[in-house]
Amino acid sequence: MELVTISDIFNKKTSTSKVVEIKAWVKNKRDSKIGISFIDIYDGSCFKHIQVIANNKLKNYTKDILKLNSGCSIYVRGTIQQSTNSQFEIYAQSLQIIGNVFNPETYPISPKPHTLEYLRNFTHLRPRTNIIGAITRIRHFVSQEIHKFLSNHGFFWIATPLITSLNTEGSGEMFCVSTLNFEKIQKNIKNQVNYKKDFFGKKTFLTVSGQLHLESYACALSKVYTFGPTFRAENSNTTRHLAEFWMIEVEAAFLSLKNIMNLAYEILKSIFKRVLKTCIDDLNFLAKKTNIDLINRMKNFISSELFSIEYTDAVKIINNSSGYFKSSFIWGEDFSSEHEKYLSDIYYKKPIMIKNYPKETKAFYMRLNQDKKTVASADILLPGIGEIIGGSEREDRLQKLNLRLKEKNLNPDNYRWYQDLRMYGTVPHSGFGLGLERLLSYITGLKNVKDLIPFPRTPKNASF
Amino acid sequence: MELVTISDIFNKKTSTSKVVEIKAWVKNKRDSKIGISFIDIYDGSCFKHIQVIANNKLKNYTKDILKLNSGCSIYVRGTIQQSTNSQFEIYAQSLQIIGNVFNPETYPISPKPHTLEYLRNFTHLRPRTNIIGAITRIRHFVSQEIHKFLSNHGFFWIATPLITSLNTEGSGEMFCVSTLNFEKIQKNIKNQVNYKKDFFGKKTFLTVSGQLHLESYACALSKVYTFGPTFRAENSNTTRHLAEFWMIEVEAAFLSLKNIMNLAYEILKSIFKRVLKTCIDDLNFLAKKTNIDLINRMKNFISSELFSIEYTDAVKIINNSSGYFKSSFIWGEDFSSEHEKYLSDIYYKKPIMIKNYPKETKAFYMRLNQDKKTVASADILLPGIGEIIGGSEREDRLQKLNLRLKEKNLNPDNYRWYQDLRMYGTVPHSGFGLGLERLLSYITGLKNVKDLIPFPRTPKNASF
Repeated sequence: MELVTISDIFNKKTSTSKVVEIKAWVKNKRDSKIGISFIDIYDGSCFKHIQVIANNKLKNYTKDILKLNSGCSIYVRGTIQQSTNSQFEIYAQSLQIIGNVFNPETYPISPKPHTLEYLRNFTHLRPRTNIIGAITRIRHFVSQEIHKFLSNHGFFWIATPLITSLNTEGSGEMFCVSTLNFEKIQKNIKNQVNYKKDFFGKKTFLTVSGQLHLESYACALSKVYTFGPTFRAENSNTTRHLAEFWMIEVEAAFLSLKNIMNLAYEILKSIFKRVLKTCIDDLNFLAKKTNIDLINRMKNFISSELFSIEYTDAVKIINNSSGYFKSSFIWGEDFSSEHEKYLSDIYYKKPIMIKNYPKETKAFYMRLNQDKKTVASADILLPGIGEIIGGSEREDRLQKLNLRLKEKNLNPDNYRWYQDLRMYGTVPHSGFGLGLERLLSYITGLKNVKDLIPFPRTPKNASF
Repeated sequence: MELVTISDIFNKKTSTSKVVEIKAWVKNKRDSKIGISFIDIYDGSCFKHIQVIANNKLKNYTKDILKLNSGCSIYVRGTIQQSTNSQFEIYAQSLQIIGNVFNPETYPISPKPHTLEYLRNFTHLRPRTNIIGAITRIRHFVSQEIHKFLSNHGFFWIATPLITSLNTEGSGEMFCVSTLNFEKIQKNIKNQVNYKKDFFGKKTFLTVSGQLHLESYACALSKVYTFGPTFRAENSNTTRHLAEFWMIEVEAAFLSLKNIMNLAYEILKSIFKRVLKTCIDDLNFLAKKTNIDLINRMKNFISSELFSIEYTDAVKIINNSSGYFKSSFIWGEDFSSEHEKYLSDIYYKKPIMIKNYPKETKAFYMRLNQDKKTVASADILLPGIGEIIGGSEREDRLQKLNLRLKEKNLNPDNYRWYQDLRMYGTVPHSGFGLGLERLLSYITGLKNVKDLIPFPRTPKNASF
């Protein structure tokens, strides 16, 4: 006897003649008056369900099958038949209940459609829905493609540390990690918290970026990436922010800004190709649900070429928008998401890259351009999403790096090891970061990143 | 002109006739009296170095090339020649210095061999050494194979949360995550810390395992895994412990303990095959360094079959060890690492699996066996390493789960969502966990896990 999955059946990894076993959950059931039940089952292996046809000749038909509820787990033996419309059915020879649903009337995942807001209250059960199942499979294949693409291009995966004593971006919005007894914090003679008593003997945080650590490996193995969780203790409850999210960061020695951003664009294309190939049913479902033509949006991206404009030119476009913005935009400021939206959604109506931002708007580690006003940085914006990738050439000149640290009011002493990378055989190098959940937002058409990560962490919410 | 890597040259992705460009770092240099310099360079793309031959006809020979130090980054144009012993050489037509080494005498990574202890003081520079380079490449391909194997076997990757309000194992050794101001902790009217003021509105920790979260996805998508960082605030400074380490956790609905442990064994075989194929130079170097026959150890494993014994029989073997242990072992206790070592290194001299441990020694979520004394659990032990994989069937019966929670003095109210998985269509399911760094210890022969993760976090150490 062969235990098969629904994916096996649809991918014809099993033949339609023989008896198979399948274990799955009931999605829906319809009982005909003539003593036949049509049971729609899913096992998560693919988007598709399969229908089990069970008739009243089965000895537990009345006792079990007629009482089956949505959510029950069952074990079916039967033969697979291909029905006319490229669908399959299983004719049950036996059907046993594995796990019942206690109190079906209170089971949160009834077969009727639920809103995404409602489902967020049941993050432990929502993977049982079509929509979260679809997202999960897409998320999986996106992640697989990232690892595969980068490995095939000679990049090595580096596990940059999550716990760090360094504040990478110079921002204050970090979580503290501690084993101190908060009920009774010990102070030193200066009446300050005695971090010597803490686990690491100093104040430590959850990382906001693995980039600086990644650079130390890029300056030895040339091509590296990190793909892991990242944290921001930002008190913003928007559809675009998570306190814990996943980020891909890529770093390469000897590559220029142009090289690295072209690579970033190629990764996106490669990811879109993979999901179009492996998750087409999930995508079709989501396209219908969101009313966005997800398939063609990705196909158009795949056949597009990276289109880039200078920050300075983007400023001109914004200031020529004839009344779209209330106030004029001053060179040197950072674009708001409204400005980005105007540029990519309204003016260009396509993915764009903006490059060479004023140094004031960007982090200390970006390489100063010859004009001494801008840095070799670039953001890729997608219509409907905004910034999805941010990259830059890194400042590889020790003196200039130290000047930039001072300009940003950062203490160069805290960056001794980072400076060492410039002291000893420095090389031009570039990198970019790509937020996984924002990318998934583009692919799936769903607006809220809380639906795109299994267990979202947001202000006042670490449930489940 | 073609920019190539050392890996490209050895994998013959470039031809030996034409002029190529290469960018790399100097490992070593030897200047002959007749005006020829032999410069050994590396770029991290593979274990191998390549020799650049530069002669005094190059116009910057005296000014630059004679002054080159270990660690300098250089840009070479030249022709590739295959030398007799399947080695390659580059005849330089031009050689430029990209980045010098300031103060070569203080550069911590001189070409002479360094101890691993010494290198731990320079985790930002140690990837430039042969040994950490080798480990990094092996770590990469191990990780790639894990993702690939599991995806090919129908498992979906789930990002289980790092920040959690749940104490999975019921252990106290967790890090707190907080944005409270430690200098001035606010108390409530009961004089307790007011966690309502904290970022998540309650006390939160860094996860010690993603298993419980993973189970919620296994009970919907059938086959899932997580591969991410895990934390233990254990104050033990040994060669086997890290405060932050990477773990693979696999969870599958409808699979028994036997099924899942067979799968675990197959993953190990598949990983060993991959590293033997892709990292043979790195492995040969490490085998020489550690004096362990790493290659044949893995080859033997690949041709072996999972050998398993009952816990109860393992106790008998230990008690028949005729004086190897001072005191006799009492059934119901947990094995120490010395006991495990005796069983796998001395008695069986091969990888073994011990199964069906007393329920007192294992976590609440493991399925109670019919004897009501043991649980359906299993550990795989490797000679020289000890436990590398721990797995179990999970308690899928609600009532028995609640009894086990009480036995372990855990409050069932804290596990409401976990209980829901048993309330609604429960299914038998099993899973296992595999620590990445311990696996790397077996593959590389290196004893200290601090050398097997890029930036180790241990008590009193979160440097870099």
